[in-house]
Amino acid sequence: MSERIRVGIVGYGNLGQGVERALAVNPDMQLVGVFTRRPPATVNTLSDAVPVHSMEELESSDGGIDLLILCGGSRDDLPVQSPKLAAKFNLIDSFDTHARIPEHFAAVDAAAQAAGKTALIAAGWDPGLFSLNRLFGEAILPEGDTHTFWGRGLSQGHSDAIRRVPGVKAGVQYTVPSEDAIARVRAGERPTLSTREKHERVCYVVLEQGASAEEVSQEIQTMPNYFADYHTRVNFISEEELRRDHTAMPHGGFVIRSGPTGEGNRQLIEYRLTLDSNPEFTASVLVAYGRATYRMNHRGDVGAKTVFDVPPGLLSSKPMDELRKELL
Amino acid sequence: MSERIRVGIVGYGNLGQGVERALAVNPDMQLVGVFTRRPPATVNTLSDAVPVHSMEELESSDGGIDLLILCGGSRDDLPVQSPKLAAKFNLIDSFDTHARIPEHFAAVDAAAQAAGKTALIAAGWDPGLFSLNRLFGEAILPEGDTHTFWGRGLSQGHSDAIRRVPGVKAGVQYTVPSEDAIARVRAGERPTLSTREKHERVCYVVLEQGASAEEVSQEIQTMPNYFADYHTRVNFISEEELRRDHTAMPHGGFVIRSGPTGEGNRQLIEYRLTLDSNPEFTASVLVAYGRATYRMNHRGDVGAKTVFDVPPGLLSSKPMDELRKELL
Repeated sequence: MSERIRVGIVGYGNLGQGVERALAVNPDMQLVGVFTRRPPATVNTLSDAVPVHSMEELESSDGGIDLLILCGGSRDDLPVQSPKLAAKFNLIDSFDTHARIPEHFAAVDAAAQAAGKTALIAAGWDPGLFSLNRLFGEAILPEGDTHTFWGRGLSQGHSDAIRRVPGVKAGVQYTVPSEDAIARVRAGERPTLSTREKHERVCYVVLEQGASAEEVSQEIQTMPNYFADYHTRVNFISEEELRRDHTAMPHGGFVIRSGPTGEGNRQLIEYRLTLDSNPEFTASVLVAYGRATYRMNHRGDVGAKTVFDVPPGLLSSKPMDELRKELL
Repeated sequence: MSERIRVGIVGYGNLGQGVERALAVNPDMQLVGVFTRRPPATVNTLSDAVPVHSMEELESSDGGIDLLILCGGSRDDLPVQSPKLAAKFNLIDSFDTHARIPEHFAAVDAAAQAAGKTALIAAGWDPGLFSLNRLFGEAILPEGDTHTFWGRGLSQGHSDAIRRVPGVKAGVQYTVPSEDAIARVRAGERPTLSTREKHERVCYVVLEQGASAEEVSQEIQTMPNYFADYHTRVNFISEEELRRDHTAMPHGGFVIRSGPTGEGNRQLIEYRLTLDSNPEFTASVLVAYGRATYRMNHRGDVGAKTVFDVPPGLLSSKPMDELRKELL
């Protein structure tokens, strides 16, 4: 236990709390502090033993932290925090705006390379585990088709985006896959389906007093990257209804690769997640990939990384010979 | 196309033929020759353009081959061939005797390290893709349970083992998962199940003239690693029945990781393969991991490797920036 990986959490919402829980079941890792933009005294961590600091304290010190796990949002927090902090720390984030990954990667890479740090971006389950399965499917069955379905589930990133719309007091968004589309893919039909045809986005919104439902609805439905390409329904509800019906955070989905080999032999690869708690699962992925990130830095593998760069054995706390013996 | 990876196939049975087919849909790779212990003139490859050589020719030359894909059996061929050939070539094998992986790894590693070559052992889907999913499950959900189910499907390794028993003229083996065990795992029951309780092994055997059914049955059922730990049923059939009912080579199975996070939130990861042709799918995995093996050698990463060592991005012919943009 003398060489535990010392971890700091940046941002303490649902995801940050999930990371605290996940670290508690990974004895080779140790939570040394939570860093927040809120007044530290107002943040209650699950364990009283965890010190809470301001972000400023993080920026002025670098002692004793092997890895930061960034738990902020992809729209406003991570584009600023990840490049800035990669100049001083190894880190991992769950940046999930797919369309902006190349620019985020470039910004983080420049900072991490210059500092000799390792920064893994876009970890979690999508992007993350689902991305890996899209890659495996395409590499192994080059002639096939890949379909990703999400839900039914609450999307943290999209709920976050709703809540930043002026006039919105609170809100959640569910991604719902089309049953018909799933059935066609699983039957090996290899249909051409747009993302729009495969899912809808269903929003439940509580308005600020005096806000215009029509304006809010319009603003959400036209939001680029998040909603503009989907069939999006916006429902307005009361704060009480939101609390009563929409506090759990389930999610899931699947990646299917279907393709032929040889003379028409059909091969099907299916990866499926069924999650009671999306933030706790994402946090669990971040912790495992955080371990790998720290180890890659230790090996001298610096710069920005993604799940595509990580040898899977580095995710486990067990030594490679034990993994070969037990799991291969 | 000027930098295609030049590949040799060693052993031309079902798996070798699958590799020839898989290489045909991977334009960055080129099949330069098939090497066989049979008289080369008796081996008919799918493409007339592929030269067939004797194993001796392989041993006496090393010109122009970037990677060997070994398609022999795990019991007699690979334990000898892999260490021997790793002293001269980058290679990949599908060694699948789980219990002997550590010693096979050590033998191959010594040869490959000394020669500056890279040799990936135990690739395919189990060991291989299933191993990866066992590793991911355990690393991400440390408190959960992993269950692997195989079948219903024909096992090449086990059929091979049957056919080496004295008195056996021909035979196949199907692995059949227990429906009851599957239902319990998927329901989140977290049962403790031995491999024996989860599957049976069903064999269909054609006897050599004059061979004793009782002795053959006994020999199969007590074979260590392959059958001794399972409930094994041996059925004797005619050559005609074998040809009529048992020529397809379907397989599949799944790896399920079920575990809690936080305060009792249940998280389920399921990876499932449904394969019309086991050898063609295994061959497709070998080709993708063969590409990665060659690239690892190019990077200076020498010695024996397993799927646990391979950064997934190396499996694809696409450059990493394109993968990040398209698949992450």
